[in-house]
Amino acid sequence: MTVTIKLGQLAEFLDATLRGDADKDITGLATLQEAGPGQVSFLANPQYRKFLAVSHAAAVFLKPADAEGFAGDALLVPDPYLAYAKISHLFDPKPKALPGVHPSAIVAADAHVDALASVGAFAVIESCARIAAGVTVGAHCFIGARSEIGEGGWLAPRVTLYHDVRIGKRVVIQSGAVLGGEGFGFANEKGVWQKIAQIGGVRVGDDVEIGVNTAVDRGALADTVIGNGVKLDNQIQIAHNVQIGDHTAMAACVGISGSTKIGKHCTIAGGVGMVGHIEVCDGVFVTGMTMVTRSITEPGAYSSGTAMQPAAEWRKSAARIRQLDDMARRLQQMEKVVEAVTSGGKASSEG
Amino acid sequence: MTVTIKLGQLAEFLDATLRGDADKDITGLATLQEAGPGQVSFLANPQYRKFLAVSHAAAVFLKPADAEGFAGDALLVPDPYLAYAKISHLFDPKPKALPGVHPSAIVAADAHVDALASVGAFAVIESCARIAAGVTVGAHCFIGARSEIGEGGWLAPRVTLYHDVRIGKRVVIQSGAVLGGEGFGFANEKGVWQKIAQIGGVRVGDDVEIGVNTAVDRGALADTVIGNGVKLDNQIQIAHNVQIGDHTAMAACVGISGSTKIGKHCTIAGGVGMVGHIEVCDGVFVTGMTMVTRSITEPGAYSSGTAMQPAAEWRKSAARIRQLDDMARRLQQMEKVVEAVTSGGKASSEG
Amino acid sequence: MTVTIKLGQLAEFLDATLRGDADKDITGLATLQEAGPGQVSFLANPQYRKFLAVSHAAAVFLKPADAEGFAGDALLVPDPYLAYAKISHLFDPKPKALPGVHPSAIVAADAHVDALASVGAFAVIESCARIAAGVTVGAHCFIGARSEIGEGGWLAPRVTLYHDVRIGKRVVIQSGAVLGGEGFGFANEKGVWQKIAQIGGVRVGDDVEIGVNTAVDRGALADTVIGNGVKLDNQIQIAHNVQIGDHTAMAACVGISGSTKIGKHCTIAGGVGMVGHIEVCDGVFVTGMTMVTRSITEPGAYSSGTAMQPAAEWRKSAARIRQLDDMARRLQQMEKVVEAVTSGGKASSEG
Repeated sequence: MTVTIKLGQLAEFLDATLRGDADKDITGLATLQEAGPGQVSFLANPQYRKFLAVSHAAAVFLKPADAEGFAGDALLVPDPYLAYAKISHLFDPKPKALPGVHPSAIVAADAHVDALASVGAFAVIESCARIAAGVTVGAHCFIGARSEIGEGGWLAPRVTLYHDVRIGKRVVIQSGAVLGGEGFGFANEKGVWQKIAQIGGVRVGDDVEIGVNTAVDRGALADTVIGNGVKLDNQIQIAHNVQIGDHTAMAACVGISGSTKIGKHCTIAGGVGMVGHIEVCDGVFVTGMTMVTRSITEPGAYSSGTAMQPAAEWRKSAARIRQLDDMARRLQQMEKVVEAVTSGGKASSEG
Repeated sequence: MTVTIKLGQLAEFLDATLRGDADKDITGLATLQEAGPGQVSFLANPQYRKFLAVSHAAAVFLKPADAEGFAGDALLVPDPYLAYAKISHLFDPKPKALPGVHPSAIVAADAHVDALASVGAFAVIESCARIAAGVTVGAHCFIGARSEIGEGGWLAPRVTLYHDVRIGKRVVIQSGAVLGGEGFGFANEKGVWQKIAQIGGVRVGDDVEIGVNTAVDRGALADTVIGNGVKLDNQIQIAHNVQIGDHTAMAACVGISGSTKIGKHCTIAGGVGMVGHIEVCDGVFVTGMTMVTRSITEPGAYSSGTAMQPAAEWRKSAARIRQLDDMARRLQQMEKVVEAVTSGGKASSEG
Repeated sequence: MTVTIKLGQLAEFLDATLRGDADKDITGLATLQEAGPGQVSFLANPQYRKFLAVSHAAAVFLKPADAEGFAGDALLVPDPYLAYAKISHLFDPKPKALPGVHPSAIVAADAHVDALASVGAFAVIESCARIAAGVTVGAHCFIGARSEIGEGGWLAPRVTLYHDVRIGKRVVIQSGAVLGGEGFGFANEKGVWQKIAQIGGVRVGDDVEIGVNTAVDRGALADTVIGNGVKLDNQIQIAHNVQIGDHTAMAACVGISGSTKIGKHCTIAGGVGMVGHIEVCDGVFVTGMTMVTRSITEPGAYSSGTAMQPAAEWRKSAARIRQLDDMARRLQQMEKVVEAVTSGGKASSEG
């Protein structure tokens, strides 16, 4: 698994200014604290600056301003974190699958698998599915009828696409994710829930990532739509007919209810829940575990919830919150009394 | 995938009053805004009434009152949403499996698979399991020893039933769901957790639906029990020995802790959490993300949490909540002072 | 599945004092209310004491103090719940796999599977993986390249380990769990998220349990680390580079963000969320659904959230919380006014 690259090659790859020995062999990537003499590192967060002087890294990606006074080898770049992101793939130990269909896989006669795609052991590819060039379909994946995966996609082992799920190019889907499940649609007939067939599909744009055990339900009538560049972390629930705008990112454990429409370039932190049938405009940041019960029409940051306290104090706060309406009324009442008394006092002093 | 039905046939199927051309060919179902001239639609939510006049739908399911003044073809029904639910299955593109066991599936010699059941590729059916007529077991499903699936059930690809899980008739289970996992049972011995074997099973009633990646743990001693007609959405956690009453529905991301008992005809919205060992009576509605820490003995709606605010305002609210007990005491103190002053004032004016 | 053990043997196994018939045949374990005459039971929670006298159990595990006045057969033990935990495994109906590799499994030529390990149907074991003696790898499991499972481990059907995941001894992993998924690492370049390769692995200690559909992401650079004796329930999200100390337990639906470090012997209740890059010290108990947004440096119990109310009352509380900062200012203002009035009053009465 060892990759060796010259420091000078890394500088070229990143279009960085090299300050140091271009011939040095680089075999990995690590944090400033943990990097050894064969590894490069980076300084992105100022709070790690203290580790710079004592780091054993072969070289460090630095902003020019941070390089002043640093004696070690450095690659000067405008954005060291981005440089790290780009270089990281060179050292990724993830196995790369070779093109071809594993003999144990079951591919429908009328499915189309490109000769440059890879299909893993025990994968099942159903009727009229289409797998483009450069796609990896991991072991135990299930690709339903008429579903399509665009060029360069990577599906971890054990990903399920139901029928009629259309995935763009270069999409990464982690293990356990399920796209196209039947959304939660029922009509209540005298107390009994009657199932509504979910006849829409799922459309996923290019450059999307979908995390471990995340669920994206198919649409009830029209499609559920995930825009280009959207990043969904693990354990997320996307209900039927949700629409997510381009380049929006969601951290783990978020739940979005049916038909909600989220704009572009939004960031939704972990554990957020959104009710159905609302709209969130572009450029919104929702902090962790917020309960979003109404549409958001202005960009900016939004929150709900209460701050953590020691449990004994919290019990008091929680009890008081239930008395809050009463407290507010009493406060208002007392303001009136005090107003009367103080203006009465004034009146009498004037008399 | 194209299904064609005469409008008159739909009217008959629904026992609806047809106002229009019985011979019209219907090939699908869509919203009022999106329906084309071959598709039927429906008006259930009054807020979509504005789309009725401009819809291109071939015909619309309407309440008689809503049909007044509508010039297009209509099917008059008492509940258009229910009519839509019933008709939706006619246009469902979901592939239907043929009876028979896929040659790649592994079925234990002493398991019983009905001749009218369908078992998908790479499915594993363990010793003494029983699969009834009309059941579909999807690809990659695992059906543990002695587990049973009643008539007409449908298991998506990749569903896991551990051993001793008994499922009623016409149950739908989505991909990634796991029934019968070992519940979280440990005894603490001097700081070390000792595992408790989970020797109970799971019993699921008829007409149940279980969503994508939902987990229903087996009982510790007795069984975990899901009643008839229960609908569980995606990403739900049902702990050991939970009991859920008939026709209760839960939206996604709900977590129910061990031994909690939920009544019939309850609706639990998304992201709700319930502690263990409590009881919720019939007919309870719990709103989204509510934390249920005590039993509920009266039907009705229940909530917890705080409303979303812009983050800067929220930080102030959150800080104030921590001061709330202090505020309540100060308010009370001031009420006493004001009472003393005002009654003192009265006393002196009477003097 | 019937196991029969003499009551006297159980007493010996538990090192308990037997009060009753050592020759009695015991075939199972049940609660006091449900136990039949062939089953043993236990009294751990005082609230079930009322069922002791009327129980049909063959014998009951009791603390000596609780046995006074109890006429039935008893096994006297210092901790009846722990006795139940230990005995439970004798009656576990879970099928035990025989050593050997199922003929349908696919094992890489350079993987090492111990002769005393069991590998189930359709399992895939990749290059250089190592499966130790006494390990059970369930059907449909995927064990990635170079991943290792220590002696005595038990993987339910359909568990995924990506590459470079190292698991200690006697680890139990439930169905649907995914270890080593690619964590949520992206660098933002002018609004577009650029993926960061996740080149670290996962290290799991001995005697760990990981629940159904739980996700433990691989590290970005260094490993994600789960200590010895850690118990993770279902539907949990552990992000990249999280560290969890020995013997910490987490209930279902918890989400821990990246690089957060949790101490030893902590208990994290269901639905808790923690932000990234914080530290929680040893011996912390976090109550259900708490939002942990800062480090915890003192052992003890911590909470957040609001108590459930009937929805109509809750709406009032929620509205008032948004006015809380205003209320606090008004209260303070009134205190000043009242202070001025009362001290003024005093002054005048002194005058």
